[in-house]
Amino acid sequence: MNLSKRIQSVPPSTIMELLTFASKAKQQGKKVYHLNIGQPDIKTPDGFFKAIREYKGEILEYALSEGLSELIEAIKNYYKDYNLEFNNDDILITNGGSEALLFTILTICDEGDNILVPEPFYSNYFNFCKSVGVNINPITTLAENGFHLPIKEEIVSKIDSNTKAILFSNPGNPTGVVYTKAELDMIAEIAEEYNLWIIADEVYREFVYEGEYTSVGTIENIKDKVIIVDSVSKRYSACGARIGSLASKNKGFIKGILKLCQARLSVPTLEQLGAIELYKTDNSYLKEVNEEYRKRRDVLYNELIKVPGVVCKRPTGAFYIVAKLPVKNADHFTKWLLSDFDINGETVMPCPAEGFYQTEGLGVDEIRLAYILNTEDLSKAAVLLKEGLETYLALNK
Amino acid sequence: MNLSKRIQSVPPSTIMELLTFASKAKQQGKKVYHLNIGQPDIKTPDGFFKAIREYKGEILEYALSEGLSELIEAIKNYYKDYNLEFNNDDILITNGGSEALLFTILTICDEGDNILVPEPFYSNYFNFCKSVGVNINPITTLAENGFHLPIKEEIVSKIDSNTKAILFSNPGNPTGVVYTKAELDMIAEIAEEYNLWIIADEVYREFVYEGEYTSVGTIENIKDKVIIVDSVSKRYSACGARIGSLASKNKGFIKGILKLCQARLSVPTLEQLGAIELYKTDNSYLKEVNEEYRKRRDVLYNELIKVPGVVCKRPTGAFYIVAKLPVKNADHFTKWLLSDFDINGETVMPCPAEGFYQTEGLGVDEIRLAYILNTEDLSKAAVLLKEGLETYLALNK
Repeated sequence: MNLSKRIQSVPPSTIMELLTFASKAKQQGKKVYHLNIGQPDIKTPDGFFKAIREYKGEILEYALSEGLSELIEAIKNYYKDYNLEFNNDDILITNGGSEALLFTILTICDEGDNILVPEPFYSNYFNFCKSVGVNINPITTLAENGFHLPIKEEIVSKIDSNTKAILFSNPGNPTGVVYTKAELDMIAEIAEEYNLWIIADEVYREFVYEGEYTSVGTIENIKDKVIIVDSVSKRYSACGARIGSLASKNKGFIKGILKLCQARLSVPTLEQLGAIELYKTDNSYLKEVNEEYRKRRDVLYNELIKVPGVVCKRPTGAFYIVAKLPVKNADHFTKWLLSDFDINGETVMPCPAEGFYQTEGLGVDEIRLAYILNTEDLSKAAVLLKEGLETYLALNK
Repeated sequence: MNLSKRIQSVPPSTIMELLTFASKAKQQGKKVYHLNIGQPDIKTPDGFFKAIREYKGEILEYALSEGLSELIEAIKNYYKDYNLEFNNDDILITNGGSEALLFTILTICDEGDNILVPEPFYSNYFNFCKSVGVNINPITTLAENGFHLPIKEEIVSKIDSNTKAILFSNPGNPTGVVYTKAELDMIAEIAEEYNLWIIADEVYREFVYEGEYTSVGTIENIKDKVIIVDSVSKRYSACGARIGSLASKNKGFIKGILKLCQARLSVPTLEQLGAIELYKTDNSYLKEVNEEYRKRRDVLYNELIKVPGVVCKRPTGAFYIVAKLPVKNADHFTKWLLSDFDINGETVMPCPAEGFYQTEGLGVDEIRLAYILNTEDLSKAAVLLKEGLETYLALNK
């Protein structure tokens, strides 16, 4: 029995092979500090659980396809703090940011169309696109420049007659880059000149540690081109809730994508009730979380750059660092850390960054680190990484 | 800004226009009995809510992309009662049956491919297919035959070189048909001869009121071709949980579709914990529900066939009846029921069936009725429908 060409073009997950190495390390009694995954260790605000516990209904009915109106209202109000002005009917609730992305791609792209995406990028962008016959035209960004965007001419050179949109995460996963106002203005200019949609994945909006944060949704004149993808996953450490959303001032887009939302009927009712409370969480929660992550970033970054040859600008957002290492192959280095290295029975697991690049050969010598451990554990992990890297370099001179 | 051709080919929901008529009727003080929607009024087993209330975690983490292993185990055991033998790694948890369907289509069909579907069919089959560039080749079935399948030659005549699968719901939404063992053997034969996938939407498996129920998954020799789509929505009256699943003995299929499951990360953790308890619900619950629906079917069917000219075999499954009425246009009749008819301030709302047909012109004179009200209300609704139809026919002679 044959599978579709499109599903065959989606790469299999590579994490399993590495997890096998991690499992073996653990079987040998090693402690492994996981810096490879984006699962935060912060407590989910209790309001989420409380709302669900207190649900009094006896029949768990379908919610509206658009989402519960009280949740939409709460998100609308949340956006006001960021000068993002939306009406209730500009917002739809989705099964995670993931569904928002997949449905957005289906709504604006046909088979054979393409989307510009700054590279390295969240690897599921690639998987969603390929699964529905859409290509990514990567705009390569560099560790040396802290993964900021190249000049306009370089971006524009990637546009062809099938280009429908530019998609980016800001703050960036995996890079931690936060785009400047000037960069976003440039994107807006390009979108206007070439009539492109802008898909802004802003799920890390609160995770900005220096400077101003600008949402592309605040830029005038292009508001009919902007689609903002959001999620409670990272913001409120509620990854398992799978509550995402999208917002757009473009009525045609909302009308189009709503057809997909109606086809899948609805998003879980109870999780939406919980999410209402999340979006009402006091801003002090978000501030505390932000301060915690800033500390973690500093712990990890300051240790990492002690090793000569490591190329890495201090990232200002999200909770990731992508670093270029003076190694030939980061995958090999990662496996070595798990199988051949330890200090007092402990080791560390980064994520090889090649999977975040589309362009062949890029990222082979890079790793992504998620600073999702408490500072005490993270300090140990950072030292292990530094020591591991130095040992590995000495062995492979 | 342009939308994709594929999203433009998905028809907008027609329910809103009719709901406007229903709203107006209610504003005028009329009571409307809704037979137009498939939202059951049966209580969700309390085990679902209890499991969620008792969740003790402080961080709501991602679940495995495959689904929680305890839920997969519970579904595997549930299937045993139906002689459906699956291993744990044959089963994946999805965001409702809807996601299972969309992901299945993407996994086996490319743009321009087609799928055979007995018509009338659940209209979202059409919407999912069109949204990803896949066509449906409808196999027309008739009210006169109780919507059973036509002869093999007729089905085979719809197959071309781009046909990848046959998709059906059994028991059937909207028709209430339950396919005989002979019909399923015929489908199996066709699938074998033409190397087609069989996508069996069996979410109404327990809603069978007469005769044997055969799942296509029990037929030998074609097990590598069968994909079973399932859901807790109707079975346990938990539509708002959005927990679906799929099962297949085809390892390649599971490996392919798992890539989509991994891209969307996971299904809500708490809802899965609740669903584990649903699948452990005592069979007496399902039996009671079955008996209740059987009564309802009889109440509605027996009233409906009193009107001369109504064509309708007594359906044996699901909780729907599709009836051909002696009217020109069932949509007009429905609007008339809402705006111009009442008995003592009460009226009834069927669902015009045209939207369940792909073939132009079919179903215009048909309605779908969902018997999801308690027998007392349903008796009133059935009498209203009969009286309404008789009055309408007298007016439009």
